[in-house]
Amino acid sequence: MREVAVIGIGETKFGELWDKSFREIGIEAGLRAINDAGIKGVDIDALYIGNMSSGRFIDQEHIAPLVADYVGLAKQNLPATRIEAAGASGGLALSQAYMAVASEVHDIVVVGGAEKMTDVDETRAQEILASAADQEWESVFGATFAGLHAMIAKRHMHEYGTTREQLAAMSVQNHRNGALNPNAQYRREISLEAVLKAPVVAEPLGLFDCAPLSDGAAALVLCPLKEAKKHTEKPVRIASCGQAGDYMALHDRRDICTMDATVVAGKKAFKYASVTPKDINLAEVHDNYSISGILAIEDLGFFEKGKGGPALEEGRTALNSQISINTSGGLKARGQPVGAVGVAQAVEVVRQLRGEADKRQVKDACYGLTHNVGGTGASVIVHIFEGGV
Amino acid sequence: MREVAVIGIGETKFGELWDKSFREIGIEAGLRAINDAGIKGVDIDALYIGNMSSGRFIDQEHIAPLVADYVGLAKQNLPATRIEAAGASGGLALSQAYMAVASEVHDIVVVGGAEKMTDVDETRAQEILASAADQEWESVFGATFAGLHAMIAKRHMHEYGTTREQLAAMSVQNHRNGALNPNAQYRREISLEAVLKAPVVAEPLGLFDCAPLSDGAAALVLCPLKEAKKHTEKPVRIASCGQAGDYMALHDRRDICTMDATVVAGKKAFKYASVTPKDINLAEVHDNYSISGILAIEDLGFFEKGKGGPALEEGRTALNSQISINTSGGLKARGQPVGAVGVAQAVEVVRQLRGEADKRQVKDACYGLTHNVGGTGASVIVHIFEGGV
Repeated sequence: MREVAVIGIGETKFGELWDKSFREIGIEAGLRAINDAGIKGVDIDALYIGNMSSGRFIDQEHIAPLVADYVGLAKQNLPATRIEAAGASGGLALSQAYMAVASEVHDIVVVGGAEKMTDVDETRAQEILASAADQEWESVFGATFAGLHAMIAKRHMHEYGTTREQLAAMSVQNHRNGALNPNAQYRREISLEAVLKAPVVAEPLGLFDCAPLSDGAAALVLCPLKEAKKHTEKPVRIASCGQAGDYMALHDRRDICTMDATVVAGKKAFKYASVTPKDINLAEVHDNYSISGILAIEDLGFFEKGKGGPALEEGRTALNSQISINTSGGLKARGQPVGAVGVAQAVEVVRQLRGEADKRQVKDACYGLTHNVGGTGASVIVHIFEGGV
Repeated sequence: MREVAVIGIGETKFGELWDKSFREIGIEAGLRAINDAGIKGVDIDALYIGNMSSGRFIDQEHIAPLVADYVGLAKQNLPATRIEAAGASGGLALSQAYMAVASEVHDIVVVGGAEKMTDVDETRAQEILASAADQEWESVFGATFAGLHAMIAKRHMHEYGTTREQLAAMSVQNHRNGALNPNAQYRREISLEAVLKAPVVAEPLGLFDCAPLSDGAAALVLCPLKEAKKHTEKPVRIASCGQAGDYMALHDRRDICTMDATVVAGKKAFKYASVTPKDINLAEVHDNYSISGILAIEDLGFFEKGKGGPALEEGRTALNSQISINTSGGLKARGQPVGAVGVAQAVEVVRQLRGEADKRQVKDACYGLTHNVGGTGASVIVHIFEGGV
């Protein structure tokens, strides 16, 4: 199994992109990554796309060859494959692309993640998102995604004394970082008071505890590590990927305060990369709700169980602190085009490891991690990246 | 890159399975394959599922962890990944699973394909299938899938003198084979006259030129070839996989009488396996319409372009003739649960190469091929299998 590197990154601005179609955002992110890698279309051997629900958001399945076509790669009969795992679609597309290069089936592979969520109304969008949970035992009884996460938050507060202010601290930090990211959906800071006073979505989660619906796309170019220096001076090595699953429905889980799939996926990733949580300088974690971000930093081993909230409150996850969490602004402030998230996380980490993150640059970053979740934790994928190779 | 073998196969009966849910058919096929391989749940490292449109057929995305959960594998936090490429979803799930084993990321992998199409009405099902074509430039103008294939048939008749009777011969042969397959949706032979007299769907294609809507699931167990003899006396080697894409819309193609993606995917597969079309004893080709089957046997190089129709008419593709095509009954008679097709094709080929196909057994079969198409040819995947290893 050969080593794999990222040699190109690209992304669109995230937000409510009324004036752009799914195809257009796919093209925009893809071409930026290809240009960034300094390769030509004919150099590309395969395309992978992470996308959750194009069938329901835009009435179009089979979107991988669609994007390949519109990017101009159909004439070379490019193999194109779509991966779906709800919110983890992008991360799993990356891991499949990684295996395609590692196995020597392909050499240069483009990985995209894209979702166009604002072509349907908000109620319909929430229905579609809820199909990431168990339709027959959760969604059909009216369990929304926010409702399921509210139950997790309530239990976490009960078990560990996590406070409403600590939940809010996750959103405040994300907005502080997002304000420094030109491509973020929300580029303004918010105060703790604003988060606490926001309308309640599902108690204890308020409007500012929930990541938005977004349009957006992101893309990466991978190649064998040995070939990477031919294309870029700053290749970033994919040190490992770890994937794990869990029971589909929240009520079947061993403990709703821990995402076991995160624990298992994280352990696999740390083991294969031969590093520990202490070696990680920055991480993009899946904060679709404020509570999810707290679970993530605990379950990945950055902080003990129950200490995630205090760590946030004490600023230990802020930019250039103990560990820089969600420098991009995370799902909350950067945006949440659901199937694109995992790829966008990797774009941010690679940008940081190349030292190109401008005002939000993490100093002396060597190892970065991405953590991408589908549903309420039935799919989790963790990647570890190494810069300076 | 290490060699990969199939050590277990399983499938449901195909048909209108009113009394079974998506979960139930997924469980049934999966458990049969696991039992056939003689492994235990804890031996499994990952699950891949091919599925086209669960989001629209059953209002449920994120179906890979759902199936893992219902098969009883959630407690071991099994990584589960869904692949979507319209009709080629199953074949691409197989190729991703193959790469996962070849790259040494996973050892024992289960691949499933499943689709439940009859929970929606026929019109809605046709709308969903049409989302495999280009929504903005084909489907939205009323181009149905049958209509697009009718245009291919018309042009093929014009260019090569292919006759209505030759198209019909594909369906007649499929039904003859399907009658020998206990799991086929249609287990009766049909006459040439019946095909010719059937109601017209899209001229020149009649009702019996079109594969049905079906429910069904199929599954395979893969492991490294070196380990295969520990599990089975008759492992089947995956000699190669070749994938290719093409323009999404039919009107953008170089030549609608040739599926370039089939030509390219086939050439890749033959090259990697170091065999030629003449070495192949049997093939399962993607006959969603009778014309598709003719294109396939030409584009894979079994017959010259334009000679597919005559070859069918002369019985050169019948069971135990020059090359045995669609011994399962193909999509026409065995059934077409769209995302399951590619996996089901592989189940049939492996069964044949193990010498377990009973009344429809191909004698002395050594090499078998599967050919799986998404859309009108924007995604194609070809696998070559070798028995007696």
